[in-house]
Amino acid sequence: VSRNLKLTLMYEGSSYHGWQIQPGRPTIQSELSAAIERLTGEKILPQGSGRTDAGVHALRQVATWTTESNIPCENLLKALNSNLPPTIRVTAVEEVPSDFHPRRSAKAKTYRYRIYRGSVCPPFVHQRVWHYPYPLDEAAIVAAAGTVEGTHDFTSFAAVDPERDRDGDRDNVRTILSSAWQKEEDELIYQVRGSGFLHHMVRNLVGLFILIGKGMVRAEQVADIISARSRSANPAATAPPDGLYLVNVEY
Amino acid sequence: VSRNLKLTLMYEGSSYHGWQIQPGRPTIQSELSAAIERLTGEKILPQGSGRTDAGVHALRQVATWTTESNIPCENLLKALNSNLPPTIRVTAVEEVPSDFHPRRSAKAKTYRYRIYRGSVCPPFVHQRVWHYPYPLDEAAIVAAAGTVEGTHDFTSFAAVDPERDRDGDRDNVRTILSSAWQKEEDELIYQVRGSGFLHHMVRNLVGLFILIGKGMVRAEQVADIISARSRSANPAATAPPDGLYLVNVEY
Repeated sequence: VSRNLKLTLMYEGSSYHGWQIQPGRPTIQSELSAAIERLTGEKILPQGSGRTDAGVHALRQVATWTTESNIPCENLLKALNSNLPPTIRVTAVEEVPSDFHPRRSAKAKTYRYRIYRGSVCPPFVHQRVWHYPYPLDEAAIVAAAGTVEGTHDFTSFAAVDPERDRDGDRDNVRTILSSAWQKEEDELIYQVRGSGFLHHMVRNLVGLFILIGKGMVRAEQVADIISARSRSANPAATAPPDGLYLVNVEY
Repeated sequence: VSRNLKLTLMYEGSSYHGWQIQPGRPTIQSELSAAIERLTGEKILPQGSGRTDAGVHALRQVATWTTESNIPCENLLKALNSNLPPTIRVTAVEEVPSDFHPRRSAKAKTYRYRIYRGSVCPPFVHQRVWHYPYPLDEAAIVAAAGTVEGTHDFTSFAAVDPERDRDGDRDNVRTILSSAWQKEEDELIYQVRGSGFLHHMVRNLVGLFILIGKGMVRAEQVADIISARSRSANPAATAPPDGLYLVNVEY
């Protein structure tokens, strides 16, 4: 009998070209696929809750794989970790019903974005934060955080790549349930929870908040940028991947 | 006029073969020397407060270099960081009297050692902790921490490499001013402050505390192990370098 297995993963993304398998480049999906094949002989591609881009990290990503193997879940946890590089860890393995799908069954996701504000970036957070030591009105950013909450068409924050499979529905309407910035020592940290996120959406939100901090966009303009439903109506640059973490997927 | 410059450094040691220059291998001292040469044309070896071994990290290391350059200190800070890999950072540059010597002038040093106790080691602390998920009587380790404090001949905790320059005096007498273990979430963390440390001394202290945690050595035996003044009287293995951090050097 085949089993649908749910894997909970944590990874440090700086040495990977993102989640999705690509020929000749290390990715999370390809490393996981290779580990599964070494263990079970099965040539499969585990499905994730969504893609993460090159350099993006995950504190909690979810993937599934349907297996014919009868190795118990607790043994698979140890065996997968023995076969994966130490920058990718499986933190849980559980059997789930066959209709559980990591992307379609997801109810909400949380992302975090870390900006390091000190003048010298500590070596221990290299590639794990965006080092941005330039002047910013941090209070303005904190105050504007809630302006993106609610259910909207977020096309103004989506990467312009219509061919790419989207996370969830085919349209660009998503709900941001909470959006908050806070200062923690030398870091300015964004945490956003929503029904789902378009490609580059969190990094483009961060880019817009940076413009608010630089005084180039006012918080009152955010509603207009959203309602324009056009990436070109949004002056924000896409923030670099280094600071981005997938924090949680809720089912 | 030449100036004696004191550099404060932070480094993530996992990609370096330690502090000291070695032919054909990346070391902290050689990277720093190369950066100085690119900036000033001076071919010199900066002197450190002491060596750190391959894989050992520093939150605060101190080095000096006597320069003929007249670049102001604040410009040197930025220029050195632009010429160093991001895993080595200069956090301060200041002019000090010509008789200041980073090793001989040091009054005390502090080291930290991090042990990760959870079953799965998070990718974000890979090479930055010793992953030791096996059973340990942690309370016994915490309780025994103070048994090594005081002024002693620490030969029982020194690497057997008599050719190596020692940190400070030529004898093996050192004073441990404080020695404490504490549990912080999934980590067991050792912090030790002393007048100076012999080669491998902190890692051998950690190795002995592990034996106490395994019930193979009792706290009451520590005094005898110290007074034996012989590495072979100490059953401890040297703990791996990954978990070790030079935290501070006091002058």
